[in-house]
Amino acid sequence: MSTQSEFSLIETYFTDLTDSRDDVILGIGDDCALLQCPADQLAAVSIDTLVEGIHFFADVDPESLGHKSLAVGLSDLAAMGAKPAWFTLALTLPESNESWLKAFSQGLATLAKQHNIQLVGGDTTKGPLTISIQVHGFVKSEQALRREGAQIGDLIYVSGSLGDAGAALQLKLKQWNDEALSTQDKEYLNKRLEKPTPRVEFGQKLLEFATSAIDISDGLSSDLGHILKKSNVGATVELSKLPFSSALQRISQTKAVDFALNSGDDYELCFTIPADKQELFESIVDGEYIHVGVIEADLGLRILGLDGQKHTITGSGYDHFVTNS
Amino acid sequence: MSTQSEFSLIETYFTDLTDSRDDVILGIGDDCALLQCPADQLAAVSIDTLVEGIHFFADVDPESLGHKSLAVGLSDLAAMGAKPAWFTLALTLPESNESWLKAFSQGLATLAKQHNIQLVGGDTTKGPLTISIQVHGFVKSEQALRREGAQIGDLIYVSGSLGDAGAALQLKLKQWNDEALSTQDKEYLNKRLEKPTPRVEFGQKLLEFATSAIDISDGLSSDLGHILKKSNVGATVELSKLPFSSALQRISQTKAVDFALNSGDDYELCFTIPADKQELFESIVDGEYIHVGVIEADLGLRILGLDGQKHTITGSGYDHFVTNS
Repeated sequence: MSTQSEFSLIETYFTDLTDSRDDVILGIGDDCALLQCPADQLAAVSIDTLVEGIHFFADVDPESLGHKSLAVGLSDLAAMGAKPAWFTLALTLPESNESWLKAFSQGLATLAKQHNIQLVGGDTTKGPLTISIQVHGFVKSEQALRREGAQIGDLIYVSGSLGDAGAALQLKLKQWNDEALSTQDKEYLNKRLEKPTPRVEFGQKLLEFATSAIDISDGLSSDLGHILKKSNVGATVELSKLPFSSALQRISQTKAVDFALNSGDDYELCFTIPADKQELFESIVDGEYIHVGVIEADLGLRILGLDGQKHTITGSGYDHFVTNS
Repeated sequence: MSTQSEFSLIETYFTDLTDSRDDVILGIGDDCALLQCPADQLAAVSIDTLVEGIHFFADVDPESLGHKSLAVGLSDLAAMGAKPAWFTLALTLPESNESWLKAFSQGLATLAKQHNIQLVGGDTTKGPLTISIQVHGFVKSEQALRREGAQIGDLIYVSGSLGDAGAALQLKLKQWNDEALSTQDKEYLNKRLEKPTPRVEFGQKLLEFATSAIDISDGLSSDLGHILKKSNVGATVELSKLPFSSALQRISQTKAVDFALNSGDDYELCFTIPADKQELFESIVDGEYIHVGVIEADLGLRILGLDGQKHTITGSGYDHFVTNS
């Protein structure tokens, strides 16, 4: 019932992560870290928790879990167009398992180095496996991407293929299978679930163009829905434009669309670009971007099906969509 | 296995906490909060986790738990001399229990308002009860109190009575009792354990005087030990000067000293003041401060007993001390 030694595990396993940035005036090992914020920018912060049995399986590869624990926070920074700077780690573990900790910290470290984000504080405690990571990044105030800026006529884009993580989850849970999927397909889908790629640099490139952005953690229907609600607009997404990986192109289209709209963990960005900036945006921005729909005045989210009919999405991201005339 | 609705619980129960500061440009409800850092100061950040069964009992009063969850972070800010600004909350709960959440958030809100610290982000997830709070404060770079600045000859102070929380914990665990304690004494001790007072304003007053500081979360022996190790010095603490509450003055002195040195959760500050600043410090600083010892060149921590002998503290904060000539 006493406080654990606060930094012992962090000092042992995570030192690799704690020394890369000049703006860290005092890192791990005191009551607080001391950090130098850039004068002309806003701090963007987000905290996310992953819990065993809720967000990952007990037998998950710990290196992948380390990656994903940081990736979900980096994806939030990406969705604001913020540049990563620092993170903290609150790690609750049932036991101090050396090989697990080494692999977990390796997964964290590899991704952290890619994005020059430094571990500046933490707390390790004994208990059921729970990982909370807070990320800190910086972005110029007037440029930060929010959910609320979408305008009527803006074009809706996503940053990559949708539905892969949802398909992988259903495969893992044995809730679904498709004989058309090869072993390689399944490995690819599982990698998309366990080691998502946060679109950090791409998010920063959107700063000059996008009127709104969000990361897709709960499915396109739910997350685009947040943009629509915050911006007080509606949208139509064209089913024929939804991007699918080679793997999902092999399964039934109905199922693939269901995964794309209604299942989470893809960590692609969804964003809106004014129609008059489309040409410039598409001509100078590197990276994958797929135009999937348009912002409209009519509230709500509609899908333009292959039948040429519009179907209204109802309820949460986990409901199916129904025909609407 | 899918991501929970990120802010639903926070939006329902914690709105009281999310609207108080002008430097919060964008609060809860987007992918990140956007925060304006003061130009001439450093950000001080700390994250702490409380886990049911490790840091608190399953039957703890949720209002007290809300208070303590934030108090431990505020105490870290106090130990750096930092002024509180913002906090984030990662709350993992087995179920959404309305009365529990109301009481918990009330405990958080009352303390947060006292210190003008605003909730700017969070994540609520389903799982074993675990609370991680990250606090953010600000302090001028050259003034920030660290563990490493103690100099030979500096006087060692604490900010209030020691050992109360440790006594309360042993009472709760039925590991110890003392017939001299009244019901009121026991209530007082329990309040010190469950609703500690972070010394936030006092910490800021130390900025002009203290050469080092730490908050006492693991016992004076262990926490003063961190100052000594980081500062590469030793110390002698006079047993007769250790401050005890009225309650602990009624129990055996040996036991009281043991609680003060070796049990945690008091959340008083321990700090060092140069001898030539003692008079000025004591004449102008409000609040409780008790001079308990002196920094010395000889490494290690010694206790000057009532017998006039010095006893060396060995091992961790949880070991007993032994005679050393």
